[in-house]
Amino acid sequence: MLIQELIKKKRDKIDLSTEEITSLIDGYVAGSVPDYQMSAFAMAVFFNGMTEVEKTALVQSMINSGERVEFEKSVRFVVDKHSTGGIGDKTSLILAPIVAACGGRVPMIAGRGLGHTGGTLDKLESIPGTKIFLSLDEFKKKTNELGLCYLGQTGQICPADKKLYALRDVTATVESLPLICASIMSKKIAEGISFLTLDVKYGAGAFMKTTQQAEELALALMEVGESNGVRVNTAITSMEQPLGRFIGNALEIKECVEIMKGASNQPEFYNETAELSIELAAMMISLGKGCDLTQARAQATDALKSGRAYEVFEKVISAQGGDLSGIKIAKNTKDVLAPSDGHVAAINGEQLGYAAINLGAGRLKTTDPIDHSSGIECLVKIGSKVSKGEPIFRIYCDEANKIHLAESRILDAVRFSESKPPEHILIHKHLGI
Amino acid sequence: MLIQELIKKKRDKIDLSTEEITSLIDGYVAGSVPDYQMSAFAMAVFFNGMTEVEKTALVQSMINSGERVEFEKSVRFVVDKHSTGGIGDKTSLILAPIVAACGGRVPMIAGRGLGHTGGTLDKLESIPGTKIFLSLDEFKKKTNELGLCYLGQTGQICPADKKLYALRDVTATVESLPLICASIMSKKIAEGISFLTLDVKYGAGAFMKTTQQAEELALALMEVGESNGVRVNTAITSMEQPLGRFIGNALEIKECVEIMKGASNQPEFYNETAELSIELAAMMISLGKGCDLTQARAQATDALKSGRAYEVFEKVISAQGGDLSGIKIAKNTKDVLAPSDGHVAAINGEQLGYAAINLGAGRLKTTDPIDHSSGIECLVKIGSKVSKGEPIFRIYCDEANKIHLAESRILDAVRFSESKPPEHILIHKHLGI
Repeated sequence: MLIQELIKKKRDKIDLSTEEITSLIDGYVAGSVPDYQMSAFAMAVFFNGMTEVEKTALVQSMINSGERVEFEKSVRFVVDKHSTGGIGDKTSLILAPIVAACGGRVPMIAGRGLGHTGGTLDKLESIPGTKIFLSLDEFKKKTNELGLCYLGQTGQICPADKKLYALRDVTATVESLPLICASIMSKKIAEGISFLTLDVKYGAGAFMKTTQQAEELALALMEVGESNGVRVNTAITSMEQPLGRFIGNALEIKECVEIMKGASNQPEFYNETAELSIELAAMMISLGKGCDLTQARAQATDALKSGRAYEVFEKVISAQGGDLSGIKIAKNTKDVLAPSDGHVAAINGEQLGYAAINLGAGRLKTTDPIDHSSGIECLVKIGSKVSKGEPIFRIYCDEANKIHLAESRILDAVRFSESKPPEHILIHKHLGI
Repeated sequence: MLIQELIKKKRDKIDLSTEEITSLIDGYVAGSVPDYQMSAFAMAVFFNGMTEVEKTALVQSMINSGERVEFEKSVRFVVDKHSTGGIGDKTSLILAPIVAACGGRVPMIAGRGLGHTGGTLDKLESIPGTKIFLSLDEFKKKTNELGLCYLGQTGQICPADKKLYALRDVTATVESLPLICASIMSKKIAEGISFLTLDVKYGAGAFMKTTQQAEELALALMEVGESNGVRVNTAITSMEQPLGRFIGNALEIKECVEIMKGASNQPEFYNETAELSIELAAMMISLGKGCDLTQARAQATDALKSGRAYEVFEKVISAQGGDLSGIKIAKNTKDVLAPSDGHVAAINGEQLGYAAINLGAGRLKTTDPIDHSSGIECLVKIGSKVSKGEPIFRIYCDEANKIHLAESRILDAVRFSESKPPEHILIHKHLGI
């Protein structure tokens, strides 16, 4: 069958077989299907979607395009978490040690940040010495030994996805639900997990702006997981404001370490990160152990509060060569002051994300360099009462010339109201519980 | 503006500006817009269509991608004809000399046949010596001097269309009305014509199977012509059976020459070709002279019957180096016999076209060679009464081994009925008259 006949079928809403999808993806990876045919196919998928059979075939052929981690069946469950991305979203650094401390194994493949959202890989790289790019054998060995290992996403896992994603990015075919789902889920399934907890975010700082869109994505992702043998549950959570206290790589590591070590000089700001980390860890434990969420929450809370999670984290970072004592945070700071009296009514996370990029803490292109030491501290949250001239954010950046642009962007991101706004709800809904 | 933003707009039904379409096409020709972006754009156009502004910008930028012929304004009108393609469709060879004999100028750019339909360029090349690939200056000079010149389609005219068409062919984006219209009309407009007559065909031997589809295409083509300053009229004509007596390159030249010279040993078969040629020529004259169709028909008929059209044809072919006396027709023939008594109820032109390809008279790929001497003679038409064993088609082919496959395909193409079928109507409708 000619590839153009296959594109035509998708264009004309005629279902493709598993063999047809497989030959398309295999040919694309091998180079016999050129980019221009794949991009036309992706656009046809944007318009006409994919059937269950097509989606499963797509995920399987993307997995088969690379290596796949396999874990021995045992009582120690293998689980991961995926977040759709947000600002200050650092829960992976806390929940993974919690789950490992509770007996699970977390083979966590981490990606870089792009656009306004951060990436776990960049955060880990702000710990000097940390080796993120391991062989799959080493990754598997460490996960088995320590209950957790972080791995930088490379071409070993799902190279078809890497190639297809780069193409979609430049052909306006990113926003296709089946393609998004296949891209996310193929990489997770290839890690060899049996269980997956999704943190699907909505709000000003998320890709999905409404809870409805977030739920739609969540259901589609869960469906792909289930049809490929992975049990999935989901939390729909708010990104209506940045998560927790810090935005920026080393600053977020500092926040996580302080939460895991039990420090709490301004607990109201740390509580949010701790709450979501515990909740997601509990969802992972509940899946892996088959226990109810209340029991799992108690176990997760105990693992965090007792310091056991931090013990795991220290061991894992140290095993990966990292030196937590060497983290560098920018010495130069600048406070952003409230322009008037009032309550903080909204904080646009996307704008804060771009302010972080201005400071060098994020990137617009995958090849942009990053300043791990810079970032933003949130001194206020939605609902905070402020007086004119009071510090509301603190900028950390040793390159003073970058501060001005970030400062004006931060001020643009905050909206004030006279009356107290409705309480901000962090965890909107559970699915698959 | 990034090209992916532009693709996204089309994908999301946001109108593009003239500048945006122009930069897309210019970039595509220059090579800065890669094939994979253009194919995604073409697929988005397949789904979402194009606005009037977009279509006009597309046509103009395709024209501007190459050279453009310009004719001096004068009383001698400049007109061309375009047919959507059929079997035995040889009218260009007769109507152009008629129009030239009536005072018009016809700068006719001719394409090769592909798939089941033939092309004027191949027919002309069956006349030994004919030089079809001229410079645009020579083309223009000859058109002015003789009232007619034939030019093979090359990369000088609308190279953007050439590149885009090749891409659409392998990305399942051919069947898009705005892209089809732009492809056809840009080349015609670039010839420097003021007037255009369209012969839009429907039926088993045409791309458009119903009169409704043919009319839809005709209206879309006419719209593009009018918005680019070319006055257009259209005949919707039948391709429910092959046109006239012969299918095949040299055989069709023979038919045209005999019609123009006044030969008529079996007039009922020549009448059809003559009738449509006169009608289309009359439509061209009516446009060019602004006279009514009845007057124009009288002029066209007189030009043909008086032999003046043939004089022009001879001069033009001779001026282009062709030697009409050297035409070679296959010596080896084989009659296809009626398998039963009855009336001919239907002749599937598409099947006959593929039979002609089997004989070497057509091609499946643009690079396939052609045997100009081979073809098929139609001894019956819809409505003909035949007896079992009577010859109904005659195959011409010097490569005897090719005959068998063609013969069985021809037999498959014919349907017989006991009662006389309804009369076949050649000219279904006029538009823009």
